[in-house]
Amino acid sequence: MKIVIIGASGTIGQAVVQELSPRHEIVKVGRQSGDVNVDITSTESITKMYETIGDFDALVATTGNVHFGDFNQMSEQDYYLGIKDKLMGQVNLVLIGKKYINEAGSFTLTSGVLSHDPIKYGSSASMVNAAIDGFVIGAAIELPRGIRINSVSPGVVLESMDSYGNFFRGHEPVAVSRVALAFSKSVEGLLSGKVFRVL
Amino acid sequence: MKIVIIGASGTIGQAVVQELSPRHEIVKVGRQSGDVNVDITSTESITKMYETIGDFDALVATTGNVHFGDFNQMSEQDYYLGIKDKLMGQVNLVLIGKKYINEAGSFTLTSGVLSHDPIKYGSSASMVNAAIDGFVIGAAIELPRGIRINSVSPGVVLESMDSYGNFFRGHEPVAVSRVALAFSKSVEGLLSGKVFRVL
Repeated sequence: MKIVIIGASGTIGQAVVQELSPRHEIVKVGRQSGDVNVDITSTESITKMYETIGDFDALVATTGNVHFGDFNQMSEQDYYLGIKDKLMGQVNLVLIGKKYINEAGSFTLTSGVLSHDPIKYGSSASMVNAAIDGFVIGAAIELPRGIRINSVSPGVVLESMDSYGNFFRGHEPVAVSRVALAFSKSVEGLLSGKVFRVL
Repeated sequence: MKIVIIGASGTIGQAVVQELSPRHEIVKVGRQSGDVNVDITSTESITKMYETIGDFDALVATTGNVHFGDFNQMSEQDYYLGIKDKLMGQVNLVLIGKKYINEAGSFTLTSGVLSHDPIKYGSSASMVNAAIDGFVIGAAIELPRGIRINSVSPGVVLESMDSYGNFFRGHEPVAVSRVALAFSKSVEGLLSGKVFRVL
């Protein structure tokens, strides 16, 4: 398969590359690194990326920003950061990419544990992660040409504990290699409309 | 309690008024009807509403639009309709309202069954309803002064089957009086951060 990995240089992206590259052709995409660049907050940039890559069999998105902050200080604009980036960035990868993807191809998005196991400062991530899972469930039943879509919802990643550990005290970290397996299951399996929780 | 009901003239709103009005003071709010008017897509309008109402003990939101349409025809803008209206309209009612609500007050939002049981043309509703539930779960743990927040996630309402029945074939309709009970449980109980599914 020809597999496009958005966020290929990130902690999760690198693990997905490692898991899938022995068996598949990988196109690494990043904001400023990789084989092709994309800014997922720009539909023009997404279209240009797909035009550059040509047809493909699977897209994996392991990218997207949200604002973490004190709920009592957060503004509408703080929520729109995550809406425009992690949520609608990934949604637009699907809306635009479904014209380019091969028959029976698949999209796999990334949400996260905060949708159902919240932390302080995480209200926007809780909202956005849940929205991604809901989108996947809704879109799956209408995708044409046998195209599938799933999300991977990981717990806090062990290899990211230096960065996020202080926010996730008490959460059991998951090895990124386990997260990568969920992406493999989505891409190389046949399920659709599923949220793969890696906890 | 003094309870503000946004969307009081709607099918669910009327049932919530009927359930709560024997025991509480109700402020009915609608876009063009009720005691006070509000356009939930406008933060200015929301602020003006709260200034008009003064302090209160509970806010119930039974309102919000999303775009229903063929996934393969839907644009980014179609998704933003639901984001700006049903999702961020209700979120902004909380972000702004938390300054006006009394100690130990409560917010109760409305999501819906499509978050986990999708229908054709419902991908935006699946996304938005899930996002509302995620927001509630995330926001609940950070709200100050004993303020609570929950969502009610109803199935298709029996009394709305004339309008929505064609979209929800095979879904078991729920009597709106049962949906109203979930709002009562949220407002008159002590739970927070819960999604009350009425199926």
